[in-house]
Amino acid sequence: MSSSHPQSITLYTAKICPYAHRVEIALAEANANFKVYQIDLANKPDWYAPKVNPASKVPAIAYGGPDVAPENPSPESTKLAESLVLVEFVADLYPQADLLPQDPVLRAKTRFFIEVVSSKFGPAHGKFVIRGEGYQDLLAGVEAVQEILPDSGKYAIGDQYTIADIALTPIVARTKLASENELGRFEAGQGGAFLKALDSPKYAKFNAYVGRLFERQSFKATFDKEYVKGFFEKRFARAQ
Amino acid sequence: MSSSHPQSITLYTAKICPYAHRVEIALAEANANFKVYQIDLANKPDWYAPKVNPASKVPAIAYGGPDVAPENPSPESTKLAESLVLVEFVADLYPQADLLPQDPVLRAKTRFFIEVVSSKFGPAHGKFVIRGEGYQDLLAGVEAVQEILPDSGKYAIGDQYTIADIALTPIVARTKLASENELGRFEAGQGGAFLKALDSPKYAKFNAYVGRLFERQSFKATFDKEYVKGFFEKRFARAQ
Repeated sequence: MSSSHPQSITLYTAKICPYAHRVEIALAEANANFKVYQIDLANKPDWYAPKVNPASKVPAIAYGGPDVAPENPSPESTKLAESLVLVEFVADLYPQADLLPQDPVLRAKTRFFIEVVSSKFGPAHGKFVIRGEGYQDLLAGVEAVQEILPDSGKYAIGDQYTIADIALTPIVARTKLASENELGRFEAGQGGAFLKALDSPKYAKFNAYVGRLFERQSFKATFDKEYVKGFFEKRFARAQ
Repeated sequence: MSSSHPQSITLYTAKICPYAHRVEIALAEANANFKVYQIDLANKPDWYAPKVNPASKVPAIAYGGPDVAPENPSPESTKLAESLVLVEFVADLYPQADLLPQDPVLRAKTRFFIEVVSSKFGPAHGKFVIRGEGYQDLLAGVEAVQEILPDSGKYAIGDQYTIADIALTPIVARTKLASENELGRFEAGQGGAFLKALDSPKYAKFNAYVGRLFERQSFKATFDKEYVKGFFEKRFARAQ
């Protein structure tokens, strides 16, 4: 499926972005060698859209081509974008990282889990934290994820840590950080109220699973909690 | 990556549904042996949600387990759902069908194309045909697809027919059928107006590509045009 000698990788990312964070975790799991360039999402460099990602979003990867500085991307490298495309790419490029099972059924279960994260959990996080529309959908997202967790096994589809776990981790990390610090578009107190609701025995399986996600070294090494918290503090500053 | 002896497959589908149609094309490309069961979406069998797909949508696959009638699914088979998960599953299960390249970069390009179909073309089709909100977004979707077509090659990512082509084909087939017959939630005449706009030289590359998609045997063998047209006639009947 893949060369055992991947070419050079430059990752364009932003610490705040949960989608870009997915790719950072995948690359950390793969123990990949890569350059990283932080894009200031509020003030993107002029060259970024024309030379890297026409959609002007992070994450993006420049793959192969000559050895250049990230801010001077070569037309000879292949530019790739979209976080879920990129985590599959990392899994394909580094098969030894075992980020996707070999078995077709388990691969399908991995991708179905990602679909649930994308359609249920992700949008509900945005609704609560970014738009302040309440946490009922988020609890429904928690239930949707919990429902498809396997009966045994540490992770999304069993004992193997996969791109399914990677898809969820950065989002739920930001949901928790926002809630714990009452930093979101929601009313003050709603963060704590969400966490209290989540603490119900009814969500014990989800909570234990998320605890294991947060213990993963690749997550700890790539989540700059203080930075994200500082960003949330500015973004969601409340009138005193 | 996969067993060369796939187990039994039962596909739950509906002729009208473009998403289910994707899986039918993939299975036809793989020359797979499978049972098929048509779900009446307006009147789903009672057993469908509890025994096959809790989301109560098509497509779904029952994989493996004992040899049973589709309407009596066994708890021992694995139930899988979501069209894009299922086309990847078919590609994994039948590697000899070559529905995904081996090269990680080409795999990423395949999946990026699918992402464009999912985020740009699919929603714009629904907006125009199902909700009658005009075809401007659909032309933007056409442009988004055309922009990422390769400079040479017959299909989405080159000369290899892949799950990227499969993701688009059933949707654009229904867009065209609806427009040609003025069957949609749009005002009478808007179907023809869209087709006229699409006929511009500016979309020549897209149109030539779609022509090749429609020539594919796996598409012809799985698109029941008269049935879908009859369904649209009932669904979008206009007051005389």
